Amino acid sequence: MDTELLRELATPNDTKILLCVVDGLGGLPDPVTRRSELESADITNLDHLVTDSVCGLTMPVGYGITPGSGPGHLALFGYDPLKYQVGRGVLEALGIDFDLQRSDVAARGNFCTLDAQGSISDRRAGRVATDVNAAICQRLRQIKLPGVEVFVESVREHRFVLVLRGEGLDDHLAGTDPEREGVEPPPVRATSPEAQPTADLANEFIKQARKLISGQPQANGLLLRGFARYPDLPSLPEVTQMRAGAFAVYPMYRGLAKLAGMTASPGGGTQASQLEALKQRWNDFDFFFYHFKRADAAGEDGDFRAKVEALEEFDTLVPQLRDLGADVLMIAGDHSTPALMASHSWHPVPFVLWSRNGAPDDIYEFSEAACRAGAVGIFPAKDVLSLAMAHAGRLLKYGA
Amino acid sequence: MDTELLRELATPNDTKILLCVVDGLGGLPDPVTRRSELESADITNLDHLVTDSVCGLTMPVGYGITPGSGPGHLALFGYDPLKYQVGRGVLEALGIDFDLQRSDVAARGNFCTLDAQGSISDRRAGRVATDVNAAICQRLRQIKLPGVEVFVESVREHRFVLVLRGEGLDDHLAGTDPEREGVEPPPVRATSPEAQPTADLANEFIKQARKLISGQPQANGLLLRGFARYPDLPSLPEVTQMRAGAFAVYPMYRGLAKLAGMTASPGGGTQASQLEALKQRWNDFDFFFYHFKRADAAGEDGDFRAKVEALEEFDTLVPQLRDLGADVLMIAGDHSTPALMASHSWHPVPFVLWSRNGAPDDIYEFSEAACRAGAVGIFPAKDVLSLAMAHAGRLLKYGA
Repeated sequence: MDTELLRELATPNDTKILLCVVDGLGGLPDPVTRRSELESADITNLDHLVTDSVCGLTMPVGYGITPGSGPGHLALFGYDPLKYQVGRGVLEALGIDFDLQRSDVAARGNFCTLDAQGSISDRRAGRVATDVNAAICQRLRQIKLPGVEVFVESVREHRFVLVLRGEGLDDHLAGTDPEREGVEPPPVRATSPEAQPTADLANEFIKQARKLISGQPQANGLLLRGFARYPDLPSLPEVTQMRAGAFAVYPMYRGLAKLAGMTASPGGGTQASQLEALKQRWNDFDFFFYHFKRADAAGEDGDFRAKVEALEEFDTLVPQLRDLGADVLMIAGDHSTPALMASHSWHPVPFVLWSRNGAPDDIYEFSEAACRAGAVGIFPAKDVLSLAMAHAGRLLKYGA
Repeated sequence: MDTELLRELATPNDTKILLCVVDGLGGLPDPVTRRSELESADITNLDHLVTDSVCGLTMPVGYGITPGSGPGHLALFGYDPLKYQVGRGVLEALGIDFDLQRSDVAARGNFCTLDAQGSISDRRAGRVATDVNAAICQRLRQIKLPGVEVFVESVREHRFVLVLRGEGLDDHLAGTDPEREGVEPPPVRATSPEAQPTADLANEFIKQARKLISGQPQANGLLLRGFARYPDLPSLPEVTQMRAGAFAVYPMYRGLAKLAGMTASPGGGTQASQLEALKQRWNDFDFFFYHFKRADAAGEDGDFRAKVEALEEFDTLVPQLRDLGADVLMIAGDHSTPALMASHSWHPVPFVLWSRNGAPDDIYEFSEAACRAGAVGIFPAKDVLSLAMAHAGRLLKYGA
């Protein structure tokens, strides 16, 4: 969406929109069978849904651009992913369900091993055990910095999150990870003059931390990077006049939904329990974001068969998703994750929108190739929200 | 590409990208056979290439916009052709292989005929013979201007190029061609105050030139237009971290490649000899631009049959182009030149990209109609480069 246009055109209605994001939905054909994961899967319910729906392919960011989870989801929530960016430190904090505030600056931390001269001998501290990491983080919480609160949160292996909370913090900071070994980590450097006090605080943190962990056999040093503030996104509920609820097992996706101003249901459990939670809250929201993770994980593992099975698992949920009776039901992906590439990719992503007033196309199968010929063609993912709101009778006419 | 985003995401790899530009590639159907030039040609090798490739149509500039050679090529080199423009004087200089420098201002010149009152009686000096033009240009080289070097280069018939070289020159200048006869040519006028010294120099050139040629029977006057500086394009090799080499028979295309920062192989010879040169330099570059001219020339001539034959000639080169073993091989056009229109046109241009990890589509023929149904659909030509780099593993993920 262009946020200001959407704000101008949004109008209340009693309709409901359900956006189901199958993470890493799109794929590529197996070289032998020449069928993609979707084309190999038994997904009768999805194929049936497509039959009286509008199909297309979403372009998450642009031609050839492979999105991370942040831009992939923000685009589906209606934000131009080139305009609104979420820093690595913030994503890392969201990923562990840290309750990030607007005045916070977050950084990703790595414990590392320093030699006697203070040079980095292992950037990942031998991928130290997660419980050792947790104990070190506990110890680092005694660090006090003037005028700000300090949070040190363990992630796993060598990774942790540092959050500074206080007024006037600035994230124009260059990190301390030289991305190679054999050199000393540089201090945190302010990249704009306003950020100097924050740089000083971060360097004071490092100084105190080094003292506290210098006796550790592996994790006797630390590197900070991806300093980022809570991004200043327009609130989806405010812009669209829709109450919005998010239902996701994993913290990262609840976190991204919260950045957009959505109310996130408690995480954890299973896809089925999150769907159950969504049913329970059906009267509380107008816009629903339901996240399905397993397809992406299988794709990232390069496991074609597991991705096919993940898609088949999602297919079994489709009748329940339809039974909710949303006025607009969409199945979309934040990006493609072809098992063949074992990574996210730039390929456009299958998309289907069901509503009572969609322009039907002659598509009878939910796949990359079939959706390409659909009624909405290849289109920017950031326009999914306005398309959905139109079908839900939630956008006024533009111009007289 | 958005240049800054590409710069941020570009990452080195050992892969190679070969971009073959068939000038004026796209066409329109013959009214009788209802088949376009591509559909009429016997292009087995191209059809075979398409079978396991990604197809689409490139939009050179925008819907309804007919591009010249400059924007047509710049787009394929990844530049937004609406943002980065190359002035007519510069294109004219490139077209005669003039070694344009960053401090130059170039203008296109026309010799004209002036009557006794100094009014234009023929804007093209009766299309004076090219050897007469050359002799006049030789004579004009004796002109000296304070603080700048002056180059006067013959093109053909009434056309020449004027280049001023020196520090602080400015191209904010209105030309002297009133585009009609019966009036006196106005002096060169500065359109910004900073350009006044350059306007004075150009007017001094005109004054001295008028004296030197006043005795000519036809070419006794001159008109200057399209004043332009060497455009300040970001360097493709620097932005993309690819060494880039250009292989073209004609100077214009080598010149455009040089503007983009590519290394241009010596020109001239034949399409076959340029291909041979490309083979010889295979280890020296990562990105290769190979230009094939004849299709455009035939289209401009309105010669449907000749364009078909030109496409068939290009087709015979395709096996050698494939044998080079590029990781990404593309056949594209800078614009369409339908023989039926005997000119460039706005129609989107057939495009095919072969790589090991492309999403194949069910296209088995290389033509305007077939490519439209391809996996990338109709897309901006300026995104060709990012798409190629993605397929070549030369772009990082965007956002975490």
